[in-house]
Amino acid sequence: MNGLSRKIYLELEPPSREDAASAQERILRALPQEYEGAQMSLGVMRKLYPLCGNAGWRVTVTLAWTGSVWQATGLEEGDSSGRHYGVCADLGSTTVVVQLVDCNSGQVMASESVYNEQIAFGEDILTRIFYAKDCPERLEEIAGATARTFRTAFAALEKKTGVAPEEYASMTVAGNMTMIHFLLGLDAFCIFEAPYAVRASRPGFLPARELGMPFEGYVYLYPGLANYLGGDILSGLIATGIAGREDLCVFLDIGTNGELVVGNKDFLLCGAGAAGPALEGGSVRTGMRACEGAVQYVKLKNGEFELDVIGGGEPKGICGSGIVDLIAEMFLNGWVDIRGRLVPEASGRIEKIGEEYAVRYAPGLFFYQTDLDEFLRTKAAAGTMVEYMLGLAGIPMEDIGEFVVAGAFGTYLDKESAVTIGLYPDLDRKKLVSAGNTSLEGARIMLLHKDRLLEVDSIMERMEYVQFGEVEDFIHLMGAARALPHTDSSRYPSVRRKLLEHGIRI
Amino acid sequence: MNGLSRKIYLELEPPSREDAASAQERILRALPQEYEGAQMSLGVMRKLYPLCGNAGWRVTVTLAWTGSVWQATGLEEGDSSGRHYGVCADLGSTTVVVQLVDCNSGQVMASESVYNEQIAFGEDILTRIFYAKDCPERLEEIAGATARTFRTAFAALEKKTGVAPEEYASMTVAGNMTMIHFLLGLDAFCIFEAPYAVRASRPGFLPARELGMPFEGYVYLYPGLANYLGGDILSGLIATGIAGREDLCVFLDIGTNGELVVGNKDFLLCGAGAAGPALEGGSVRTGMRACEGAVQYVKLKNGEFELDVIGGGEPKGICGSGIVDLIAEMFLNGWVDIRGRLVPEASGRIEKIGEEYAVRYAPGLFFYQTDLDEFLRTKAAAGTMVEYMLGLAGIPMEDIGEFVVAGAFGTYLDKESAVTIGLYPDLDRKKLVSAGNTSLEGARIMLLHKDRLLEVDSIMERMEYVQFGEVEDFIHLMGAARALPHTDSSRYPSVRRKLLEHGIRI
Repeated sequence: MNGLSRKIYLELEPPSREDAASAQERILRALPQEYEGAQMSLGVMRKLYPLCGNAGWRVTVTLAWTGSVWQATGLEEGDSSGRHYGVCADLGSTTVVVQLVDCNSGQVMASESVYNEQIAFGEDILTRIFYAKDCPERLEEIAGATARTFRTAFAALEKKTGVAPEEYASMTVAGNMTMIHFLLGLDAFCIFEAPYAVRASRPGFLPARELGMPFEGYVYLYPGLANYLGGDILSGLIATGIAGREDLCVFLDIGTNGELVVGNKDFLLCGAGAAGPALEGGSVRTGMRACEGAVQYVKLKNGEFELDVIGGGEPKGICGSGIVDLIAEMFLNGWVDIRGRLVPEASGRIEKIGEEYAVRYAPGLFFYQTDLDEFLRTKAAAGTMVEYMLGLAGIPMEDIGEFVVAGAFGTYLDKESAVTIGLYPDLDRKKLVSAGNTSLEGARIMLLHKDRLLEVDSIMERMEYVQFGEVEDFIHLMGAARALPHTDSSRYPSVRRKLLEHGIRI
Repeated sequence: MNGLSRKIYLELEPPSREDAASAQERILRALPQEYEGAQMSLGVMRKLYPLCGNAGWRVTVTLAWTGSVWQATGLEEGDSSGRHYGVCADLGSTTVVVQLVDCNSGQVMASESVYNEQIAFGEDILTRIFYAKDCPERLEEIAGATARTFRTAFAALEKKTGVAPEEYASMTVAGNMTMIHFLLGLDAFCIFEAPYAVRASRPGFLPARELGMPFEGYVYLYPGLANYLGGDILSGLIATGIAGREDLCVFLDIGTNGELVVGNKDFLLCGAGAAGPALEGGSVRTGMRACEGAVQYVKLKNGEFELDVIGGGEPKGICGSGIVDLIAEMFLNGWVDIRGRLVPEASGRIEKIGEEYAVRYAPGLFFYQTDLDEFLRTKAAAGTMVEYMLGLAGIPMEDIGEFVVAGAFGTYLDKESAVTIGLYPDLDRKKLVSAGNTSLEGARIMLLHKDRLLEVDSIMERMEYVQFGEVEDFIHLMGAARALPHTDSSRYPSVRRKLLEHGIRI
């Protein structure tokens, strides 16, 4: 492993009259060549005595990369080079996921997911941003809550592994621009206000203690390119390796927002849009997160729903992957038409409730026409981003080598259903890849591969940001994309075939 | 000026839809080429908003050298590049001298000298070292007292100039090994205990806040070579430029100890010995520091002393320069013989007091035979260091290009008297240079000339440390050097001539 920290065991000669060099110098000069010019933190200088003598001058030094030089940040008696731990994190607005990594083997020792304590200041990001706007004290509160969230997660990792956070040698964090601003205690209103120029986009390496982390050493924060293209996306690009590939790839991260990168080793177009909450079940009346009681998968057989509920109990609502299945199955069975309208004649489960139709997908649980409208608007936004970007680059959809979907949403989604409703393009299914939490994965990769830092710089230089809101024909394209699977159904031959099997011709 | 800090005024374009780069990036990319790769402190990131906007994007950035990279450590509205201040310090065990420097012009704006608050833990260094030995809490106390001393001195500088310490962009410190250990909170017992290997000899650049300094930015601490060859000597070498000269130089720093460097651009021999306190009036019964009431200069005319007293009032004791004069004058007038014995027959002012003779140099003030013995032992040690080192290098005394004496002691010393007693060699007087506080001067030079850092490294590599205690014939040589001016009087032709004028032949 060639990561952002090192632990090196040294067997030093004790000082003698012939060689009375200082303890500091004995250590620094004994380090391998690649650490020449390394500095030593004050904390380590203070540990030199009596530690070196007590240890018979057999010591283990922790080195951390500061962004410009190696710094000795830890010193232990004897050979503790086998205990070399780092932590990587995906700092999400709702959930913070951390992994404890053995930096010698690269193995993940434990993972932990905790709620972001920022939630106390608002469920959604915008509420938090307004809470702290122009108020340094509240920014400190939010920064403090963020650091506390990490410490809580670290404590849980310690419980699982026995590795105390004080042992961490390094940390990497990927998060969107708002999350990184909040971690740093920066006002994030800029993210929502034209011209969308943020405060700090490249925080780089910062001393862990300055960020409220309970260990010596440094924290690397992935840089971001623009207000909606943050460190989580850069991290995702490192994780997927798209920026180094020959073939053309699409990288789509669907979370609270939708972020998109199209390109390969030669170019990288990127953009972002509000393509998120509805897909995750956010604006659906019986929508819920993918936790116990959520309908995760749906099949429609002989006019009846077959539901797969997380945890196996009674359904309490429906999460993103369930919604995609629900719409796809209803569409294939003629319960929803090409314009996205519920067809009451198709099933007795479609009832009029108040002013609108709704489908009863489980006892007492309805999916309304307005839910459907909202969901299709969002899927249209996501699909149009891809379409528009490919158009901009003059690349036909079929030239895509890989269509990578990042994020938890993509992980549980049924690919067929996603294609059926036109959320994913109708490509060879092998080209449709669910990459999972690429933000976390990129953070872990950086923790273990310092040389990838150069790649981040190179990606940042090559990325071209496209502001979708600025694009004239975007709205027009989006209108067409609201249909199921798309107004231009010739783009979805496999969906056409499936519909034909169900006796529906579009 | 090309110092360790910079203040740069930037007129930035405000963010626009065409260029929505972050405030951080706008600043970093606007910096001149030489600052490429500069980092930004968290503190500055937190200042970006609302400062940049309020200032109409006309801001001044402070950059500080961290030892490996430039870091933006300050941000102000408008053009404050004219206010660019740094502070340099000579950290002495008794006195701490600081200078406020205008880093644009290089001018010293004010100087301040304060007592080192470490004195509360012992007048002499050894007492302080024992006080804190193996006791981290007491080390913190001493480190705290050292930082407090600086803050007191800074407050005095502010009173004189109106420049608040918070404005300092950088700081440099030169001090001996014990003082630097104490500033860092390190146990300094190692300095007195074989094999004399210290804890940290190259602290380099440390964040000012970590050292208890009241400003952002970094503090550079001059490195030391060995227990008795600390940062004050390295700083002195930078100040005098000896290590870059063609001709052979001797650098002698007489303070609490005596430190010596002999060499030029080709080689540097160095060593140190206990050659101090007596010369400064330390072990002389009526000796005192060079402050009000101290006899500073002495002439002996027609059997009577003519005294020059600091402040002009009644004499209360005698300081180093006065003692050298006193002995020289008595020697030239036959009151002291070549072996350093008071000659009672020469004057009624030489009286027997108790068991020994003493000369009454002022009403009620006596200089005793034992004082004389002690003083000559010390001058012999200093002289022998020089003699031995020249012998080691195979260089005759007359080849010396410059004999540089550093420290306050040298500044007030009468050169003729110093030669007469054999403390200085009998060279062309133009070659005898009193360089003053070279430790402070070297600190100031580094504050203003970052490129000299490389010279420090080069000097450290070339310095060869000679342990005088280890040298067999050192004691023998020292015996010969205790005579006035020296057992081998042929080395002092000018002294011989002067004695002859007084009718004394040696």
